[in-house]
Amino acid sequence: MTRIALLQFDPTVGDLAHNAARLEGLVQLAAEHGAEVGVSTELAVCGYPPRDLLLEHDFIQRSLAAALGINSPIPLLVGTPLPAEDQRSLPTNGVVRCGPEFTSLNGNSQARVVAEKQLLPTYDVFDEARYFSAKNRSGLARSLGRLNLGVTVCEDAWQAAGSTPSAYAQDPIEHLAEWCRQGVSIDATVNLSASPFHTEKFTTRLHVARHAASVLNHPFLLANQVGGNDDLLFDGRSLVAWPDGRAVVAPSWCEGVLMVDLNGPERCIWVPSTAEDALMIGQGTTVTLTASQTGLETVDAVDELTDAVVTGLADYCRKSNIGSIVLGLSGGIDSAVAACVAVAALGPENVTGLAMPSRYSSHHSIDDALSTAKALGMACEVHRIDEMHTSVETTLATVLENGHPVAGENLQARLRAILVMGYANARSSMAISTGNKSEIAQGYCTLYGDMAGGYAPLGDVYKMDVYAMAHRFNQRAEALGRPAPVSSSTLTKPPSAELAFDQVDADSLPPYEVLDAVLRAHIESGMNADEMMEAGFDEGLVMDVLQRLERTEHKRWQMAPSPRVSSRAFGQGWRRPLASNHDWRGAPR
Amino acid sequence: MTRIALLQFDPTVGDLAHNAARLEGLVQLAAEHGAEVGVSTELAVCGYPPRDLLLEHDFIQRSLAAALGINSPIPLLVGTPLPAEDQRSLPTNGVVRCGPEFTSLNGNSQARVVAEKQLLPTYDVFDEARYFSAKNRSGLARSLGRLNLGVTVCEDAWQAAGSTPSAYAQDPIEHLAEWCRQGVSIDATVNLSASPFHTEKFTTRLHVARHAASVLNHPFLLANQVGGNDDLLFDGRSLVAWPDGRAVVAPSWCEGVLMVDLNGPERCIWVPSTAEDALMIGQGTTVTLTASQTGLETVDAVDELTDAVVTGLADYCRKSNIGSIVLGLSGGIDSAVAACVAVAALGPENVTGLAMPSRYSSHHSIDDALSTAKALGMACEVHRIDEMHTSVETTLATVLENGHPVAGENLQARLRAILVMGYANARSSMAISTGNKSEIAQGYCTLYGDMAGGYAPLGDVYKMDVYAMAHRFNQRAEALGRPAPVSSSTLTKPPSAELAFDQVDADSLPPYEVLDAVLRAHIESGMNADEMMEAGFDEGLVMDVLQRLERTEHKRWQMAPSPRVSSRAFGQGWRRPLASNHDWRGAPR
Repeated sequence: MTRIALLQFDPTVGDLAHNAARLEGLVQLAAEHGAEVGVSTELAVCGYPPRDLLLEHDFIQRSLAAALGINSPIPLLVGTPLPAEDQRSLPTNGVVRCGPEFTSLNGNSQARVVAEKQLLPTYDVFDEARYFSAKNRSGLARSLGRLNLGVTVCEDAWQAAGSTPSAYAQDPIEHLAEWCRQGVSIDATVNLSASPFHTEKFTTRLHVARHAASVLNHPFLLANQVGGNDDLLFDGRSLVAWPDGRAVVAPSWCEGVLMVDLNGPERCIWVPSTAEDALMIGQGTTVTLTASQTGLETVDAVDELTDAVVTGLADYCRKSNIGSIVLGLSGGIDSAVAACVAVAALGPENVTGLAMPSRYSSHHSIDDALSTAKALGMACEVHRIDEMHTSVETTLATVLENGHPVAGENLQARLRAILVMGYANARSSMAISTGNKSEIAQGYCTLYGDMAGGYAPLGDVYKMDVYAMAHRFNQRAEALGRPAPVSSSTLTKPPSAELAFDQVDADSLPPYEVLDAVLRAHIESGMNADEMMEAGFDEGLVMDVLQRLERTEHKRWQMAPSPRVSSRAFGQGWRRPLASNHDWRGAPR
Repeated sequence: MTRIALLQFDPTVGDLAHNAARLEGLVQLAAEHGAEVGVSTELAVCGYPPRDLLLEHDFIQRSLAAALGINSPIPLLVGTPLPAEDQRSLPTNGVVRCGPEFTSLNGNSQARVVAEKQLLPTYDVFDEARYFSAKNRSGLARSLGRLNLGVTVCEDAWQAAGSTPSAYAQDPIEHLAEWCRQGVSIDATVNLSASPFHTEKFTTRLHVARHAASVLNHPFLLANQVGGNDDLLFDGRSLVAWPDGRAVVAPSWCEGVLMVDLNGPERCIWVPSTAEDALMIGQGTTVTLTASQTGLETVDAVDELTDAVVTGLADYCRKSNIGSIVLGLSGGIDSAVAACVAVAALGPENVTGLAMPSRYSSHHSIDDALSTAKALGMACEVHRIDEMHTSVETTLATVLENGHPVAGENLQARLRAILVMGYANARSSMAISTGNKSEIAQGYCTLYGDMAGGYAPLGDVYKMDVYAMAHRFNQRAEALGRPAPVSSSTLTKPPSAELAFDQVDADSLPPYEVLDAVLRAHIESGMNADEMMEAGFDEGLVMDVLQRLERTEHKRWQMAPSPRVSSRAFGQGWRRPLASNHDWRGAPR
């Protein structure tokens, strides 16, 4: 029996000492459970993505030193950036050996390098060609304990499976397979990954691993980062795949060690991290898959989405040293679900809601807001904004009278933002913005109003999925014998911004079932107007939705980060020019 | 005499028809002045940078069609993206031939391709590896009129001069030089550029061109884009350099044609665009340089900065269909200069100032604000915010009493933003944010308060440079016999946010002369704390400035675009993670 430990962990970007200590804790745990060899995630010692920290020469040097300084009772492969040999070259994304044969920084550091990343993704959320130079030699760790391991870094395995948007000139998996055919003895190939989450991404990652195992004809092991960094989420789910398609998958949203027995799934086990502040969200159990399973059979999509969003906010706060949250509670579905997320992430004692009715707010709005807060056990204060609202309206009377009606509506959203930000600033809390992806994509939100906040937990969640999350939070509460946080009134009333009398979202937008479908087709599937009409969507509907989507680009430019849960989000992966030929686009609102 | 026309023009990103028509107008003008051959800028037909528009397959196809459809009375080289030959490859950044031998779309479009970009910058503001695949064959346009021209695209020429941050594996200039040594007849080499502006960038660009001419031993001609696109500015300054170092440089911030006589500088002339809405900012004259001149002798740094900032705002508004601007006028230096910029960009009839004194505002504040508005001929309205301020304070009394004092100060900035945005929304105007780079880099500004606005014209201008611009606007006004827009009171009073009694910036920040020097050392020269102390800066000063700079990262994430005038700005080229190990960083304010 040969056991390889995949160290699934949640690094804090840039916190080299913390990350190194965390890795030491995990590899110690692995050794206690009988592991012979340990494998970290990609760039584990500095965390992924380090972005422009990689432009600092110091940072690269200190990362490498931290990696080489890791004390491990067993041989260990650690991901770290490696300095370039000369000043005019970029660093590489590498893997070094640690373990009992090395004490601290002894020996030739170059001799401890076992692999450098060959394929540098530069699309969607990835910008690796900006920071790294690519190598064209496959990685091999000889005599790591009793093993010879092929060593790849994340994207290196994706070309062989045809799972990249464009083709690379080389294929590291094929290269290793060629070595095997030439008689090089390789027991297994490992992959150090920081592969971000989105819905159903897991099946693609599993396909990549199975494909590699099949081409290499030996087990393929992938250690994946877990947790949230800014807008990127990592689901963990480190895994091993055998050439026959069987696989064992570690849990998502948890830190720990997947102990892999190369002989087969039966003796693979999950050892949760024992660190006091370890990330522990979700089910926490491994899944064993037969060759015919895609993996999706084992995933509840709503649980997954809910856990992803909670992880994003929890990690953003922990890593940025934010201890408490304040948000507006309107009585509507978005703020109710955002409150559920905030309480799940930070605990009810660290979340404050503000109900801020105006003259347009319905009677049930305050009741629903207070009901959510009470069920969650969080504080909620009520402040009417009528007086301030009237005062601003009086000041602006002349200009509002002859102007665009949206100007008057926005005043309320912005006054509420002043109160929420006032609480946040006074208490050194973070305000969160509660808007969802559907309404943000349509510009149905107020810049510096409800868009204000340091983080937008639902910013990549479509409206219908917000409803699904609401039901799930209610079910989870009920399962624990607690009151449901989202009232049936909130769940069933027609969505309304309540910025004018009798206003409902349906006055301005298509029904959310329809809107979400159009937005998914365009954003997720990349369909243009013609393709959507061919697919059966109504022409007027499509053009209206796309025009509103273009109009809101400017607002998105100034948005708080939101955790990415879909295959295409706004932000990093959505970088269209603002000043361009959209002559129907007016001034930013 | 052989005349090559460099078409220096200001494309609107994505507006293929507009850009093609503009090119047709310029090449017609060039032909009328005796040009035999025309050369456009990089990606001229779609504008630079097209960013994620390049991910749309349609867009690439339509760009190529627009380029091939250009009617030109003389042979013309046009920059356009070129579709990949297969679905799994990226497009290339190419150059096609147009001219009398081609009518519209006839002939084999592949045969009309003369060059594809070889070096793809992927650093700082550039992301070309994200969008394009690189080619490794140098471009050659044979029998273009009577000429054989080497053809390069922007970065292609920079490797030879050692002017890129990291080295490429190939060197297109050396490749062309090798062809020349092998007897290939090349009369001159042209370069289609979209080379962004920053202070003193021009001398680097000139060095690159001279180096190429020297290596190639024939004239090197560079056609550069002009104008502003989002946060990027392009200064034009198309140029020709001879192997002996002589050069002729076209004007900055103007559209037109640089008519180059390959025999020498004497008969090179500048023909301004005749288009009604042509960009025409700055001096509008060519400069002839001897081999020993760096080019900087011919540049007044303050004029250049002023014209750059005006160009950025003017173009942002024109390309985004924004016809009018509203801004807060505090009586301070930043808003006075921002008003000068807005009036220069859009005309006084399209700019409205709002003076919004609170109980903390000094008597001279309103006077100074009104004086600026009057001198500029723009509207200015006065609205006191006392009543609203008191109303918000009353609502938040409990939380403010025990909270961080900055919370109370921020209320005023955010109330003013509500008024400014109310005007902007009601009138479909754009609000601009008036903050400067020094204060933004120190977080000495209010998120959703004075940072609110669709564009921040001074966001990349250090405070001391704002003063220099103020004096220049006054001098320009006086030269025209008009009153000085920035009053001597505004110029001489100690800078103050006026958010508390007797508050001055110097209570919270070092003197701006000192602060600007520290920020320049860190941001522009990339010095870390140790290096700055070695350079003689005080340790306490350096650590305070750097800590405040890190704390404000989150605010920057949510900023309006500002035109980039320095060698390193925030935004595109400053992408550090937010959630990282800065444990002294508190919640966003």
